[in-house]
Amino acid sequence: MNKFLDKINARIAAKKTFVCIGLDPDLDRLPKQYRADAEPILGFNQYIIDATKDSAACYKPNLAFYEMHGLRGLKALTATLKYIPAEIPVILDAKRGDIGSTSRAYAKAVFEEFGADAVTLAPYMGGDSLAPFLEYQENYSFILCLTSNAGARDFQKPKLYKKVAAKIQEWHSRYGNCGAVAGATHPEDIASIREIIPEAFLLIPGVGAQGGDLEHTVRAAGNKNHSGFIINSSRGIIYADDPAAAAAKLQQEINKLV
Amino acid sequence: MNKFLDKINARIAAKKTFVCIGLDPDLDRLPKQYRADAEPILGFNQYIIDATKDSAACYKPNLAFYEMHGLRGLKALTATLKYIPAEIPVILDAKRGDIGSTSRAYAKAVFEEFGADAVTLAPYMGGDSLAPFLEYQENYSFILCLTSNAGARDFQKPKLYKKVAAKIQEWHSRYGNCGAVAGATHPEDIASIREIIPEAFLLIPGVGAQGGDLEHTVRAAGNKNHSGFIINSSRGIIYADDPAAAAAKLQQEINKLV
Repeated sequence: MNKFLDKINARIAAKKTFVCIGLDPDLDRLPKQYRADAEPILGFNQYIIDATKDSAACYKPNLAFYEMHGLRGLKALTATLKYIPAEIPVILDAKRGDIGSTSRAYAKAVFEEFGADAVTLAPYMGGDSLAPFLEYQENYSFILCLTSNAGARDFQKPKLYKKVAAKIQEWHSRYGNCGAVAGATHPEDIASIREIIPEAFLLIPGVGAQGGDLEHTVRAAGNKNHSGFIINSSRGIIYADDPAAAAAKLQQEINKLV
Repeated sequence: MNKFLDKINARIAAKKTFVCIGLDPDLDRLPKQYRADAEPILGFNQYIIDATKDSAACYKPNLAFYEMHGLRGLKALTATLKYIPAEIPVILDAKRGDIGSTSRAYAKAVFEEFGADAVTLAPYMGGDSLAPFLEYQENYSFILCLTSNAGARDFQKPKLYKKVAAKIQEWHSRYGNCGAVAGATHPEDIASIREIIPEAFLLIPGVGAQGGDLEHTVRAAGNKNHSGFIINSSRGIIYADDPAAAAAKLQQEINKLV
């Protein structure tokens, strides 16, 4: 049994939503009433979770926005994770990857200490750097394949991301619990990743603030069950004047295309 | 002025040492007397720092071994960083890398919240994912180029690491404050990296527990000033029966070859 797959599939079925909401609180951008709070990050996250939980397939806090505040930030993360309803899966966006003994420590941090259902990983160091995460049978790992930033052209394109996709497919065949991060900036590349990885989940950032094309992205992303993907929006939802409406709008826009 | 370069060059000149000591405490491997301690990690790290500081060119705590213990671990890291003598530079081994706005948060965590002199970074997401770190003019970034694990063969070899090395050289020319992580498992590859990156610092893991060849490594690693490199040992020193002797031995072995 895989906690992440059980939860996300149940969530997609029950709520018909493919929306992943990035909980990336930047103090400078929080509405005034939270900035003055004793626990600004937790207060803001609770407000976002309350507003968006009916549209959320999953939540994805990026560790950076918590680590930057040291112990205080990590406490806010722990409290945020507790506040997320148990039936909504959590992807901890960590982009970790290190030699085996060190990756074991990171995997323990992410899956045991924080109790996340899933994680994001960086593939540069190869299969043995990811194995300690994949050995957590109940959890899921999203491995960077093609990212949505301009720097994707430095190394990932034109060829490396396809080699990484092929490895992800190999690891998925062996472990059954990993998929790919596939940026939405170029939907034709998502199609080529989906060809290499026919079944596993794709986590797709880059719509909204980063400007990806939703229609072509969704059409390229689905597996044969018209599922197996989630589309992330962080800033486009959490800093909207009405986060509930922004999340529901993205949910409906995606659903029209599935 | 660059804090890391000033400190490491002063340290190499004053102490004649190229030894980087990895502070990667694994609770299961600590000597009994520290395991029973109320703050086992801090107690153990203080013992290692006291024992090895005369041979240490720098210390390199890997964040994973602290994050795995949650808040308690981060407190131990903060206290450890305070305990390290101010003249010995600290590389926080983090292997971070994310889209720009997120990397800014990580850079703030590493350089401001923890106050590290240097950091390790993962290059997969490209130049714009690293720039927020490189913009800290007083700090130094070691970018993964060729790692010492078997998984280096999955993507880095045979060609990608040279492409990454060329980019590191390009960033070094622009920012003046980055070098490469170059694993010691294959000294001939270190030579080829040194050819592409003639001046910048190389951080070299993989001697000791990971089995690299010290003599060929040192001969390949030096720049034209017979400097510009540090050789890391973690488990080989911190779990030695006599860490002071182990660190001094590695220091002397390297110095014979410089």
